[in-house]
Amino acid sequence: MTHAGSAADQAGTEEQRPSAATPPSQLVTEASHAAALDAADSLGDFRQRFVVRDPRLVYLDGNSLGRLPRATVERLREVVDDEWGGQLVRGWDHWLDAPLRVADGLAPLIGAGPGEVVVADSTTVNFYKLAWAALGARTGRRAIVTDRDNFPTNRYVLEGLAEQRSAEIRWLDGDPIDGPQPADVAALLDANVALVTFSLVNYRSAALADLAAITALAHDAGALVLWDLSHAAGAVAVDLEGGDADLAVGCTYKYLNGGPGAPAFLYVRRALQAGLRNPIQGWFAQRDQFAMGHGFRAVGGIGAWLTGTPGILALAAVDEGAALTAEAGMDAVRAKSVALTEYAIALHDAWLAPLGFTLGTPREAARRGSHVAVRHRDARRLCARLIARGVIPDFREPDSIRLGLSPLTTSFGDVRTGIAALRELAAE
Amino acid sequence: MTHAGSAADQAGTEEQRPSAATPPSQLVTEASHAAALDAADSLGDFRQRFVVRDPRLVYLDGNSLGRLPRATVERLREVVDDEWGGQLVRGWDHWLDAPLRVADGLAPLIGAGPGEVVVADSTTVNFYKLAWAALGARTGRRAIVTDRDNFPTNRYVLEGLAEQRSAEIRWLDGDPIDGPQPADVAALLDANVALVTFSLVNYRSAALADLAAITALAHDAGALVLWDLSHAAGAVAVDLEGGDADLAVGCTYKYLNGGPGAPAFLYVRRALQAGLRNPIQGWFAQRDQFAMGHGFRAVGGIGAWLTGTPGILALAAVDEGAALTAEAGMDAVRAKSVALTEYAIALHDAWLAPLGFTLGTPREAARRGSHVAVRHRDARRLCARLIARGVIPDFREPDSIRLGLSPLTTSFGDVRTGIAALRELAAE
Repeated sequence: MTHAGSAADQAGTEEQRPSAATPPSQLVTEASHAAALDAADSLGDFRQRFVVRDPRLVYLDGNSLGRLPRATVERLREVVDDEWGGQLVRGWDHWLDAPLRVADGLAPLIGAGPGEVVVADSTTVNFYKLAWAALGARTGRRAIVTDRDNFPTNRYVLEGLAEQRSAEIRWLDGDPIDGPQPADVAALLDANVALVTFSLVNYRSAALADLAAITALAHDAGALVLWDLSHAAGAVAVDLEGGDADLAVGCTYKYLNGGPGAPAFLYVRRALQAGLRNPIQGWFAQRDQFAMGHGFRAVGGIGAWLTGTPGILALAAVDEGAALTAEAGMDAVRAKSVALTEYAIALHDAWLAPLGFTLGTPREAARRGSHVAVRHRDARRLCARLIARGVIPDFREPDSIRLGLSPLTTSFGDVRTGIAALRELAAE
Repeated sequence: MTHAGSAADQAGTEEQRPSAATPPSQLVTEASHAAALDAADSLGDFRQRFVVRDPRLVYLDGNSLGRLPRATVERLREVVDDEWGGQLVRGWDHWLDAPLRVADGLAPLIGAGPGEVVVADSTTVNFYKLAWAALGARTGRRAIVTDRDNFPTNRYVLEGLAEQRSAEIRWLDGDPIDGPQPADVAALLDANVALVTFSLVNYRSAALADLAAITALAHDAGALVLWDLSHAAGAVAVDLEGGDADLAVGCTYKYLNGGPGAPAFLYVRRALQAGLRNPIQGWFAQRDQFAMGHGFRAVGGIGAWLTGTPGILALAAVDEGAALTAEAGMDAVRAKSVALTEYAIALHDAWLAPLGFTLGTPREAARRGSHVAVRHRDARRLCARLIARGVIPDFREPDSIRLGLSPLTTSFGDVRTGIAALRELAAE
């Protein structure tokens, strides 16, 4: 147990949280503590805005697939029945700009401005487009910096690009819990680096990288930086503009509750848009698209990153999901996320650490996303048994159970019930 | 009027169609003729399987966006409410193989076998993947053969690839009505050609290319052939295996009725699968995907052409759309398509040709897809006025009105009502 010594401190911190409903003497493990936290939760009512088919289910996997907003059910009915069914092809009069319109609604959630984001294609395809473009914009440079713990699809895309473009990947072997640290990144940078790319929040440990510091280091070395926000968007108050970020991608089906396989977003800082090329030159990026003329001429601005015909049903679902997070406000969402993860860590320390678990997530809230990984040599089997009992986290190799705490839908009561069940199973 | 001389022949052909309901003396222009054709239509009942919100609307644009199947409304409700809303992340237990499962249902409609097709990404992204792979598989060869009248997104993607890979595009300037002819293709082939690519059905004229003949010529020259089936799938009885086709892509939102922006299909002949590389190496193509291990190792077979997380809602809609066409049977679908286009051409000849229209579509049924283009110097304005009157075709530069005749949903009465309205507007 790496961090067992701080368990009491952490519980102490919890008890000191200002809340009229939480008397100072109350133990963090008591049910009344969770109830008090839920009662004081300013976002507690948002749970009712989502479909909850089985109220007994403890869903701790919103970091993998977010819940279904009630508004999305009605919006999809409209898009399917009224728009596709009724307007038919005339729907394209307003569908055509959906990838940019939905993106402009999502942009403030990641600290981007209007005209800096599109929603289209998958995260993988968007990551490929931007990584390709970054290599193309730094001719003469042949190195890519990333970490061995980056999300698999990013690593695989980079391996393919490196082979195709005779580039070299410099792998950062960082701490698996703490994620990429600026000093370690700096050690890999030189004048041959074209692209630096990390996940802002690590998919396994939830380590939250220092976007501004790493971006500044990469810029000092003359490289472009591409952030994957998949495990951050909708849970962490990302500030792309404030951090001077160049490029970003991310998925919308986790904390943004956009639905299974919903299209991803892609960000290009406005100042860079004129200088970068999309390798997949499709008709949705063509100036005067329906002239269907000869010779590709990209539209100005972020629209140049569109490719083919966007999925209209899925875009509507992303629109509704992002709107709910916008309504809640990213500051409140982040505060709730921190409170949820602090509470989960306190319960880990009190209940799980004595049973052989270790924490697989940074303890410092500022360095943490919205899930908590608890590690155990028997994690795979325990996770399967939890799911059979109606508590749904997920397992990640080699030994992590991820407890995904989704600010708009996870209650403090869910966290306690879920971790109590895990404790019970592990103690058997 | 290029083909006005054959108007009487064409009408004669119509009158000679064997049908007990059609007395030999009946004129093709009479309402009773359309009624008789509808009464004899073995696929007529399929129209009731689709949502028809406004029965007065004459929808002649199923070649752009197919109608909404009733079964799709119910299937989407299940996928949204029961699967996303109820199963939540557990839905991935059966969603994971949806891109291959839905593809195997669609494969027979295009003459492909199981394990030769995926449904994922857009047509544009799939076209990029396959064109890239073909260039990579024919190292040393640096030419691409296509036609200037190919669908815009294909031309734009090829222009980008040619620039990126220092390749040359050899443009076939074919007849705008008849499409690419084998002899003209042959004249562009030599040992430097890596890739030959055409649309099987031209988006403007509906010219149906000779897949087997062009494929054989390309193979003789050592090139790979990539067919875009977007305007053919679900209307023409495509035989990819019989024609020895190498590669194909196509969209599902036209005659396959998959919905606006539905994911596209991608075909790689089984024998070629081991030798071609997908340039976008994403996690959905990774062997043992959820081990999330180091080093990309593609799965065997067609799954190697997946990239990122597939859109689950849209895949369900494609599944339902393709199932309806499979139920009808491609032979019956093609026969209906030919009958619809023959009838539209006969009405063009009788009603529109005298008003200054010319036919923009091949007269030989075997060389024609499922839409009919009628050309007029005032086509743009006439098309807009038609739409205002509740007849929905579409306009394509510079002078074509496309009448899309969708075998499962267009009636012969629709064809007559639509062309009668166009005649009336043009005569004003």
